[in-house]
Amino acid sequence: MTSLPRFPDTAITPPGRSRRAAAAKTSPVRDLLALTQRPEVISFAGGLPAPELFDLDGLRAAFEEVLRSPLVLQYSTSEGNHELREAVARRYTEDDLATEPADLIITTGSQQGLGLLATSLLDPGDPILVEEPCYLAALQTFALAGARVIGVPYDGDELDTDALDRLAAEHAPKFFYTVPTFQNPTGRTHGLDARRRIAETAIRRGFRIVEDEPYRELRYSGEALPSLSTFAPEHVLSLGSFSKVIAPGLRIGWIRLTADIRQTVTIAKQAGDLHTSTVDQAAAAHYLESGRGEPALERIRQEYGRRRDAMLDALPAALPAGSRWNRPDGGMFIWARLPGGADATDLLTTALAHDVAFVPGAPFFAGTPDRRALRLSFTTYAPDRIRDGLSRLGTASRAAG
Amino acid sequence: MTSLPRFPDTAITPPGRSRRAAAAKTSPVRDLLALTQRPEVISFAGGLPAPELFDLDGLRAAFEEVLRSPLVLQYSTSEGNHELREAVARRYTEDDLATEPADLIITTGSQQGLGLLATSLLDPGDPILVEEPCYLAALQTFALAGARVIGVPYDGDELDTDALDRLAAEHAPKFFYTVPTFQNPTGRTHGLDARRRIAETAIRRGFRIVEDEPYRELRYSGEALPSLSTFAPEHVLSLGSFSKVIAPGLRIGWIRLTADIRQTVTIAKQAGDLHTSTVDQAAAAHYLESGRGEPALERIRQEYGRRRDAMLDALPAALPAGSRWNRPDGGMFIWARLPGGADATDLLTTALAHDVAFVPGAPFFAGTPDRRALRLSFTTYAPDRIRDGLSRLGTASRAAG
Repeated sequence: MTSLPRFPDTAITPPGRSRRAAAAKTSPVRDLLALTQRPEVISFAGGLPAPELFDLDGLRAAFEEVLRSPLVLQYSTSEGNHELREAVARRYTEDDLATEPADLIITTGSQQGLGLLATSLLDPGDPILVEEPCYLAALQTFALAGARVIGVPYDGDELDTDALDRLAAEHAPKFFYTVPTFQNPTGRTHGLDARRRIAETAIRRGFRIVEDEPYRELRYSGEALPSLSTFAPEHVLSLGSFSKVIAPGLRIGWIRLTADIRQTVTIAKQAGDLHTSTVDQAAAAHYLESGRGEPALERIRQEYGRRRDAMLDALPAALPAGSRWNRPDGGMFIWARLPGGADATDLLTTALAHDVAFVPGAPFFAGTPDRRALRLSFTTYAPDRIRDGLSRLGTASRAAG
Repeated sequence: MTSLPRFPDTAITPPGRSRRAAAAKTSPVRDLLALTQRPEVISFAGGLPAPELFDLDGLRAAFEEVLRSPLVLQYSTSEGNHELREAVARRYTEDDLATEPADLIITTGSQQGLGLLATSLLDPGDPILVEEPCYLAALQTFALAGARVIGVPYDGDELDTDALDRLAAEHAPKFFYTVPTFQNPTGRTHGLDARRRIAETAIRRGFRIVEDEPYRELRYSGEALPSLSTFAPEHVLSLGSFSKVIAPGLRIGWIRLTADIRQTVTIAKQAGDLHTSTVDQAAAAHYLESGRGEPALERIRQEYGRRRDAMLDALPAALPAGSRWNRPDGGMFIWARLPGGADATDLLTTALAHDVAFVPGAPFFAGTPDRRALRLSFTTYAPDRIRDGLSRLGTASRAAG
């Protein structure tokens, strides 16, 4: 080995992390949730799709087929695979929302889509509105962008659209971020009237809407609702993802863009990771064309519907008397609220002693947290295991009470 | 379809893009380079690896093998696949740089690594130093982070380390970004003495070094040089990538992190795209374990070495009299300088009329551009095609002169 250079007498420590990175802390429940990794724990905490429902054979065949050409291993365009964008555009168009491939950019999961929109639209200190509570990783992304995040409260199970209007007038936000269908963490869905009012407010007050729709196709009951784009086409940017309908490991999502920021987002994508995996995009496009996607999704819907019902049936005996929860028509989550005076983090500590877990609701709030709230995921286990887990939770609830 | 909401009388246009996004323009030569896409053009402009040298069979076998378990389609950790990090750590350790898997985070190409470090270390307005000229997509990433970018000049083919010291004292930069081996765009490599001086300056002045090493393993002549980490282990963050040694379409890179910012970068990765494609990471790990990687890389080295030599042999007749260029020991690029009074963008216009292309050097400069400089990539074509292209360039040079 070569000899070392003449080192200076005093070394100066390198500078620390940025202020914006310091603002994006890991959640305080993270350590607690690390305990849910013990194999004996039945965990309703995660938001994981059920791997036994992935179409492993179909996807293996798609990868094998596309890996006949070396071009699936080459650099590709930042906008993404054209066939894949055609397939996604077709799904929107069939859903009454006319869409061209050029309206879409493929992202490395919809999580990256959030980051690209933050980069493209936000300077540090810019105000944005979010639902209260809000998807946790979105809050993290907005914190890293240095945004000033203001929560819009719910009035019962409905977004308080009067508050949305008032807060928009007061803060002139760059956008309102919403998961309109089967929200994470609450499982809530904005009804038709709420969608109209949200869109109308965006147009009147001049803010954008970032509509995040990972769960839209996971509907087990009730009627599909139109995208917010239908009511405010120039104000809405929609994020989509295959994570919940094909498989999350591929990291394939997209943004349906309005024309005015298409080039800006494309530059942000280029700087972000040049492009999403060429081979994963080609395999996803080939898989969709094979026609195997829709029956596989139908199997997922049927099984998740059974799991949701199993959880709803077992919840009355699992949570303390006086608890309340919703009955979502789809998605992955049920949102519950413990009776007055109870604290979900305390209940989690007791629950973990009984080898069962959930997520307290507090970290999902941008402002004052609701300490009585908790989130339960119903997609990870088959119905019998859900019943076992909720029976343990019942024991824990009685022990805690 | 449902009836529309009562729309307000006057709609307000949504807010525009962020100031930082507006600062990251597409390059003005982009339109010119679009012309290189015509099939009749022999283009030395791109930085594309040669797809015929990808180990397509080996990678197809790896994907088929790992796609036996649904877990390669599931969400995974933000840090990345453990076996893959073990394999990368082993390569560093064999290279005299002791490395543990925990020192590494897998990124969606090393381009994402740049963005994660910018997010983790830079607030808008923070000063950083770069080599002048500098890798273009890095300049774009730093612009999106709102950084104040200051170029460190070269003195001939060597970085001016006195200027590095002076600029560091003057600006107190957060980091110095360098591609120390076979740089893009210049093909230049910092020698052993320069590496020592750069590291010593970082320690004495208290700035970090971001060392970007995509080309390190593409060496065709000369001796390997130690990483800057060897001389300043606490000040250097190293970026690596499989794009040039396996295939770029997988989008797999990594950062070798110092302990002080490991958690910060992991949070930025989580917010960035949660994690890199599970299946691509698993396939890459399996491919490396199969032992097929090293012989495939050796084939790439031999063929690229022949292509470099073919280009160096043909350049004297291709560029105007009085031009000069370097003879890199590896990588993908040769950097040339036209004689006084010439402009590389003018020559490109004439060259395109003769169906041959290169990249003018100007866009690669953070400060005052060198309008006489140009970059030629030698990896895309076999030697005969390189000779054909440079013969056309010779005709163009004589027509332009």
